[in-house]
Amino acid sequence: MDNKDEKEMRDGDRGNEVRLPNSRKVYVESNGATENTTEHKLRVPFREISLTPTRNHLTNELEVNAPVRVYDASGLWGDPEFRGDVRDGLPGVRREWIVGREDVEEYAGREVKPQDDGYLTAGAREFAKHKDRGKLEEFPGLRRAPLKARTGERVTQMHYARRGIITPEMEFIAIRENMGRERELSPHAHEEERNSLAHQHRGESFGAAIPERITPEFVRDEVARGRAIIPANINHPESEPMIIGRNFLVKINANIGNSAITSSIDEEVEKMRWATKWGADTVMDLSTGKNIHATREWILRNSPVPIGTVPIYQALEKVGGKAEELTWEIYRDTLLEQAEQGVDYFTIHAGVRLPYIPLTARRATGIVSRGGSIMAKWCLAHHEESFLYTRFRDICEIMAAYDVSFSLGDGLRPGSIADANDRAQFAELETLGELTKIAWEYDCQTMIEGPGHVPMHLIKENMDKQLEICHEAPFYTLGPLTTDIAPGYDHITSGIGAALIGWMGTAMLCYVTPKEHLGLPDKDDVKTGVITYKLAAHAADLAKGHKGAQGRDNALSKARFEFRWEDQFNLSLDPEAAREYHDETLPQEGAKQAHFCSMCGPHFCSMKITQDVREYAAQKELDEAAALEAGMREKSEEFVQSGAELYAKA
Amino acid sequence: MDNKDEKEMRDGDRGNEVRLPNSRKVYVESNGATENTTEHKLRVPFREISLTPTRNHLTNELEVNAPVRVYDASGLWGDPEFRGDVRDGLPGVRREWIVGREDVEEYAGREVKPQDDGYLTAGAREFAKHKDRGKLEEFPGLRRAPLKARTGERVTQMHYARRGIITPEMEFIAIRENMGRERELSPHAHEEERNSLAHQHRGESFGAAIPERITPEFVRDEVARGRAIIPANINHPESEPMIIGRNFLVKINANIGNSAITSSIDEEVEKMRWATKWGADTVMDLSTGKNIHATREWILRNSPVPIGTVPIYQALEKVGGKAEELTWEIYRDTLLEQAEQGVDYFTIHAGVRLPYIPLTARRATGIVSRGGSIMAKWCLAHHEESFLYTRFRDICEIMAAYDVSFSLGDGLRPGSIADANDRAQFAELETLGELTKIAWEYDCQTMIEGPGHVPMHLIKENMDKQLEICHEAPFYTLGPLTTDIAPGYDHITSGIGAALIGWMGTAMLCYVTPKEHLGLPDKDDVKTGVITYKLAAHAADLAKGHKGAQGRDNALSKARFEFRWEDQFNLSLDPEAAREYHDETLPQEGAKQAHFCSMCGPHFCSMKITQDVREYAAQKELDEAAALEAGMREKSEEFVQSGAELYAKA
Repeated sequence: MDNKDEKEMRDGDRGNEVRLPNSRKVYVESNGATENTTEHKLRVPFREISLTPTRNHLTNELEVNAPVRVYDASGLWGDPEFRGDVRDGLPGVRREWIVGREDVEEYAGREVKPQDDGYLTAGAREFAKHKDRGKLEEFPGLRRAPLKARTGERVTQMHYARRGIITPEMEFIAIRENMGRERELSPHAHEEERNSLAHQHRGESFGAAIPERITPEFVRDEVARGRAIIPANINHPESEPMIIGRNFLVKINANIGNSAITSSIDEEVEKMRWATKWGADTVMDLSTGKNIHATREWILRNSPVPIGTVPIYQALEKVGGKAEELTWEIYRDTLLEQAEQGVDYFTIHAGVRLPYIPLTARRATGIVSRGGSIMAKWCLAHHEESFLYTRFRDICEIMAAYDVSFSLGDGLRPGSIADANDRAQFAELETLGELTKIAWEYDCQTMIEGPGHVPMHLIKENMDKQLEICHEAPFYTLGPLTTDIAPGYDHITSGIGAALIGWMGTAMLCYVTPKEHLGLPDKDDVKTGVITYKLAAHAADLAKGHKGAQGRDNALSKARFEFRWEDQFNLSLDPEAAREYHDETLPQEGAKQAHFCSMCGPHFCSMKITQDVREYAAQKELDEAAALEAGMREKSEEFVQSGAELYAKA
Repeated sequence: MDNKDEKEMRDGDRGNEVRLPNSRKVYVESNGATENTTEHKLRVPFREISLTPTRNHLTNELEVNAPVRVYDASGLWGDPEFRGDVRDGLPGVRREWIVGREDVEEYAGREVKPQDDGYLTAGAREFAKHKDRGKLEEFPGLRRAPLKARTGERVTQMHYARRGIITPEMEFIAIRENMGRERELSPHAHEEERNSLAHQHRGESFGAAIPERITPEFVRDEVARGRAIIPANINHPESEPMIIGRNFLVKINANIGNSAITSSIDEEVEKMRWATKWGADTVMDLSTGKNIHATREWILRNSPVPIGTVPIYQALEKVGGKAEELTWEIYRDTLLEQAEQGVDYFTIHAGVRLPYIPLTARRATGIVSRGGSIMAKWCLAHHEESFLYTRFRDICEIMAAYDVSFSLGDGLRPGSIADANDRAQFAELETLGELTKIAWEYDCQTMIEGPGHVPMHLIKENMDKQLEICHEAPFYTLGPLTTDIAPGYDHITSGIGAALIGWMGTAMLCYVTPKEHLGLPDKDDVKTGVITYKLAAHAADLAKGHKGAQGRDNALSKARFEFRWEDQFNLSLDPEAAREYHDETLPQEGAKQAHFCSMCGPHFCSMKITQDVREYAAQKELDEAAALEAGMREKSEEFVQSGAELYAKA
């Protein structure tokens, strides 16, 4: 990182880069709502968006609009009070909890080797250290000795859950997931169902079981039965606990990662912070080429969200890119390396079995998963079953010792509409179901990756089969893309599929950027991908009937209807774009106070007319009420005058 | 239009603006495939995308990839041979057919008044004529005397269809809709089902009845029973026939239109040509303010696609924007004015009835349709039933005399998730069903407009109710938007809903641009909206199992898998964006020939690995076949040597 970049980054840290307008970071502290809460003090972060009051046009009074609290993945980088620096990393908020469980031990850890960064010899590494030869600075902040489970112990959240223990992570998550339901509604909100900010359509959850309120016990029970995971490596104490499961808010993942062709370490760290600013719940570092280890260290030490990787990518670099030279030993070494660094979940393509490979030969687009094709090549070269499959129990032992979650990769996912839901794909899914059971024997948290390219009408079959075959382990899908013909717009072709499959039960959606199939995403692409997936996940939450999900829609629609332009911008997923688009048509500051919108102009606006209609109706009701009252009074006087007898004499 | 603009426009006409790379315009001529074909010579346009050959890595031979034909809405503007000018307008291709039916007559037509362009007095119009005062140049090209039905005649496509007549329009449409099925597949295409370009998933059509091949008879029958419409005003002979119906390709509409605040006449004409270049099947001119008549004339004379309007917008301008001053006479005069100009369909909010208005008072966002709120205001001001409802039969007479199709407006559509599927919305739908029956009495072609803002799980209810209540008349929906919280991204929030409802049976999807709720779309927004809706409509066609829809996906995926980058770009909905995104990462021309993609770099590409796998598998098969053959020969020799007896002696 040269000085200029460094300075920019520091400025970014101190500036408003990660903050959104009219927003402040608020923390809800552990409230002892349950007997089983831990003694740890928890501070659960939210973003709170403050709103302007509504002017009641009938009474001319101002009515307060309560601030809206939203889920916030940005970590301390989104807190104006925080004076951190990426060269120091984030504080390890979970460290105390992890050590407090007294089932881990510090140890010296594996020595970092030149190969870890893609330098196959020490000489190559030394050479690269010279200026402009590509070796990146190593993370200069705190280096903790790694932790692992003491011999005979398992340290996974699933292990604790199965023993009935509520961890601070679970309690944190319960508070976090309840966000929408715990915030106070405006005391001035209308009481009528339709017009209430609390109004919520019932939804169709396809058999999910989302409770009215998420309790720590519920979190525990969902993790215990494998229906949700909490990716939380004991060596990544910087991460804020979050959960991935069908009965929680739908999450999204953003992929970042260098590549042989472009990108640099500071760009990747910045992409991670950028992705979480806009709402990425987890980030996968898919780096290949050089400096993989160093890049990952920078990302992990600065990431408030769980980090996932595909270890086979790094293992491949260690053998100079030759798939056939991969060995179990090299792979195992890579798992340990990454587990010690703190990676929270590993994509492992253990379902790409030798007998399934011929099933792909007549596909339109063969094997499109990188991990899948590496393993296919290995299997064919050796004519041997995949070591990921044969050594799966060994892998489980490692995962259990660090609480790395499995993300069982779909190496045979379809790469085109033509190949959707074919035999190869579902054969692999069967194996993933079998492996899920084995992982659970070791208390390993497990989720299942899904396709890919799937036309809309075949999406439900994917979801239904996954739930059945994989025993309700969380599904984590890439898109799926619902057509192949729109490269450049695949965030949208896949956003459609993502919203649908999220509704049907997928727990986490892996984003796709506009550059999919074409190039590497830059910062704008990452943002577009994240926002697209946030809206898809939210559309899914609404359709599932997740309690509280509709509150933000209701608040934004109320702002829109009342011409509170600033509030409309600030409540949106991307306040900057909303404001910018508005200003392109009506740049004057005054227009944001105007009671008309830019589509129609000042003399012709449906919302203005509707407001008139409502005022008219309200006035009419008042008139009617007055008339009724007057009528009653008249009747009453008549009644009194007639002798005030209950039954008039005939 | 000043000289500079004019010059730019002429340059645009002559340049490549409306053309797409490696594409040529081809025409299929009427082939007399049916007894009932007309004697008119039809030239049905398509865009044909030429492809590069595939190099077979095993044989090193080149294999031809047949060109791909796609539906093309751009008209003659997309034909390099055409030397037209927007100041002349397009030739009236349908004029001969219309006059040939001998049921129409020319007449003097209504005189254009200052009020038609929003100048309430002749003085105001004269004043505006001075430079820089806003009066726009009138269309200088051919002015035909308007046509109308002779007394006692009806000239709608539904009228002909019900009499068993196949019009040239219907025959044209049959050829056009078969596009995907009539093109020749590559003679070198693989025979295997999965790998065939003709491979097509069966789809789930929710009860639609899409035939294997569209015949003119089928078109006629669908129009006769009201399940499809052909918007084709006899005064818009420039338009190329197209059909809107559940059993045809899903269509999209793009809205354009000036506004009191921004836009100009040449911008609007250019937006129309731009929208159809990218695939808009119809265009709605939603102009308000001044110069409505003049703008519409420019658009109609240059539009190869049907044009829709909302006549109440212009009527409102004629009464100075005061809804309560609207009268049936002014409205009727506006219908005639627009029918004479050639508008192909009118949005008419005749379902906004007086008794339904109070149902909206407690909504979160009241009435958000412009037309709906104008009529609501009128009804309340007069405390009288809407004249659109009471005069509906008079309106039908006008529509039938020009073949203007009804687009029965959903004036009470929900403007927020909270208001979706409420009583007001469905009460109006009931009325639209009742009006559909009446329109059909007059042989008027009719489609029904739909919402709006609807969470995913409530979309199907909309579609099912519409089909039932409106007797399968085509549904034409705006989105629907599946969440309220993403202004700036509402092309996507609504693209999700559009794909879903298109799949479920909606015949035409009205686009939403990124500027929805925020501002007026510019050229980029129009393009983004159109491409988003093209991909949503295509995703719907795929899911419905529309025969031939998958061909383009298959061709693009084959190009992708074979690293034919140029073909991948050219087959996509937006070749420019695809190429640009690719070049941002790998700008060198050589990279487009490279056998790796930009995501992974040259040493690490899953597609390359898969190709190796496939070659390995193919070689293995060859080896096995050779071994088998060798084994057979051996056995055979053994057999001969053993005496060649069928049953060996024991």
